[in-house]
Amino acid sequence: MDERIREHAATLVDWSARIEAGDDVVVRVGEGAHDLAVAVAEALGERGADPVTVYSSEEVDRAYLRGHDGEFDDVSHELALYEHADSVLSLGADRNTAAMADVPADRSQAHSRARQDVREARLATDWVSTLHPTRALAQEAGMAYEAYRDFVYDATLRDWESLAEEMGRLKAVLDDGREVRIVNDGTDLTLFVEGRTAVNSAASVEYDSHNLPSGEVFTAPYDTAGVVTFDVPMTIRGRRVRDARLTFKDGVVVDWEAAQGEDVLTEVIETDGGSRQLGELGVGMNRGIDRPTGRILFDEKMAGTVHLALGRAYDACLPEGDSGNDSAVHVDLITNMGEGSRLEVDGEVVQRDGLFRWEDGFEA
Amino acid sequence: MDERIREHAATLVDWSARIEAGDDVVVRVGEGAHDLAVAVAEALGERGADPVTVYSSEEVDRAYLRGHDGEFDDVSHELALYEHADSVLSLGADRNTAAMADVPADRSQAHSRARQDVREARLATDWVSTLHPTRALAQEAGMAYEAYRDFVYDATLRDWESLAEEMGRLKAVLDDGREVRIVNDGTDLTLFVEGRTAVNSAASVEYDSHNLPSGEVFTAPYDTAGVVTFDVPMTIRGRRVRDARLTFKDGVVVDWEAAQGEDVLTEVIETDGGSRQLGELGVGMNRGIDRPTGRILFDEKMAGTVHLALGRAYDACLPEGDSGNDSAVHVDLITNMGEGSRLEVDGEVVQRDGLFRWEDGFEA
Repeated sequence: MDERIREHAATLVDWSARIEAGDDVVVRVGEGAHDLAVAVAEALGERGADPVTVYSSEEVDRAYLRGHDGEFDDVSHELALYEHADSVLSLGADRNTAAMADVPADRSQAHSRARQDVREARLATDWVSTLHPTRALAQEAGMAYEAYRDFVYDATLRDWESLAEEMGRLKAVLDDGREVRIVNDGTDLTLFVEGRTAVNSAASVEYDSHNLPSGEVFTAPYDTAGVVTFDVPMTIRGRRVRDARLTFKDGVVVDWEAAQGEDVLTEVIETDGGSRQLGELGVGMNRGIDRPTGRILFDEKMAGTVHLALGRAYDACLPEGDSGNDSAVHVDLITNMGEGSRLEVDGEVVQRDGLFRWEDGFEA
Repeated sequence: MDERIREHAATLVDWSARIEAGDDVVVRVGEGAHDLAVAVAEALGERGADPVTVYSSEEVDRAYLRGHDGEFDDVSHELALYEHADSVLSLGADRNTAAMADVPADRSQAHSRARQDVREARLATDWVSTLHPTRALAQEAGMAYEAYRDFVYDATLRDWESLAEEMGRLKAVLDDGREVRIVNDGTDLTLFVEGRTAVNSAASVEYDSHNLPSGEVFTAPYDTAGVVTFDVPMTIRGRRVRDARLTFKDGVVVDWEAAQGEDVLTEVIETDGGSRQLGELGVGMNRGIDRPTGRILFDEKMAGTVHLALGRAYDACLPEGDSGNDSAVHVDLITNMGEGSRLEVDGEVVQRDGLFRWEDGFEA
């Protein structure tokens, strides 16, 4: 076994999920995740935890959903499983990212609605989702399998403790700040963050961060004004979007265009009232991620980028009782913070040319 | 997909497990059982049942058990899953039948003891175990993969309804009978069955039969006397046993020998008091099974054979409150009922030269 798979398992179990002896753990094993499941089982054995392995297969789900008439009823066994679990570790590993392509959307949605209690029980545990590299995921990223594995482990096997500490600095600046300004080629945008709380997304339940890898600091902005160009290519609803350019006034998108995929951008923006406003400002700080791969889990964490999401804000960023920007959508768009870029908080430069002010080479 | 996989799934779901709309089903998916899991999921969707798929991997189990210190505690999530399930479908599909070879036996036993409540909860459901053909299982059988698949489906895709009817005839004879006599080359054995109840093992929970395939009628004999030669080769505790020959007096083995594996036979017989007596007399009636493959699930069901088990009797065969022959072991041995053989009940020939008296060609 590739030693990195064992390191991945140890990072997941210890840093991310904080598993302890006696914990009842559900391990959801994706179709291609067998090797990681073996390594996770070994680690759980060593920690004295108690796993149940669930087979999480999109081909099985597809067959079930296509066979079903769409009138789903309640389940008690799956609900009981998650209600009695302390942690849920999801090992994603698609063998075909298009496996569900011919499931009618209304069937999936009906099933998802009928399983809301199961989902809530799962999200009430110390859950962590991670990804085991497969050829299908390498293909999605446009990369050779071996190179993709290197990419995934570079992103995943970080020194999370020191990254969490570094991200804590940015969180402190954002939490104390009032106004954020983002400047780069094609962007000059102002957002307000006063009263909002940034999340230090350090890939651990200890930080209320549930994805491995992670590596971003995000908050919920409001009253956005100015122009932003998203030069990192994205795939939204299966369609490619390039160089989307949004103009905001009084917190609302008033104008937009894109070199490619303007139609899907329009679809997103016109979803509802909240989809015309931003729900998230995030700063990517994972230096193991050196390129976009078309999977938002990785792309938005890329060091030297900032992402903004149209739509729903995360509760963790909002004052108690404040619902923040609400929408049926949450669509991330990413802009590079390279040469000539600036991230300012209340007029002070926090990041210039992609370097934070606490990094070597930063020019004040 | 091989159409036989779909037929297998339909047989399992409808004939064996009697799944109905709204049933909460656990599907345990062996490492190599993906395709059958997909077919079962489709069938469960069509019936309106609700599956949870569990990944049942010996490599995962091995890693967990080897990592663990052996002091296992209780689990609540796995117990809750099975306590809330109506049915459990186990799809066995080893990719390596020696996957657990280097797990210390005491570790496995300790884990098994700690999970007794989970096992009991599972056995309290309408559970059915079946087998999906893999290359590892073909290898164990000494067969090419394609030929082994044909073998498995011939054994599994029977007309179970008419076989159940035929087996019902033999059950009636045994239930009404007092004394059974088995005669073949090397065998002349008398067993008493009066007061015992035969099980019509027709591969359906409806018949209290939990394996697919099945196809045997079995009861719990006593007061065995005479000699029996088991000419079907067996693998017991990993060791080959050929032509075992046992002599019984007053229900107890008084002498034994074997052309190969006499040591393991001795080990079995000398286990405890009950291991010197028979716990089971079974008659194989599955005509789809035409050869022994070293897996008792199939071998003991082979048409034209009778098997006897040293050790524990099954409760279902015993009068209420009677514990029957008790032992830590239950080891099956098989003898061919070919040319020159006779199965008699109370002096009447029920089977001669491998043909039952209700079959064409039977000579009274």
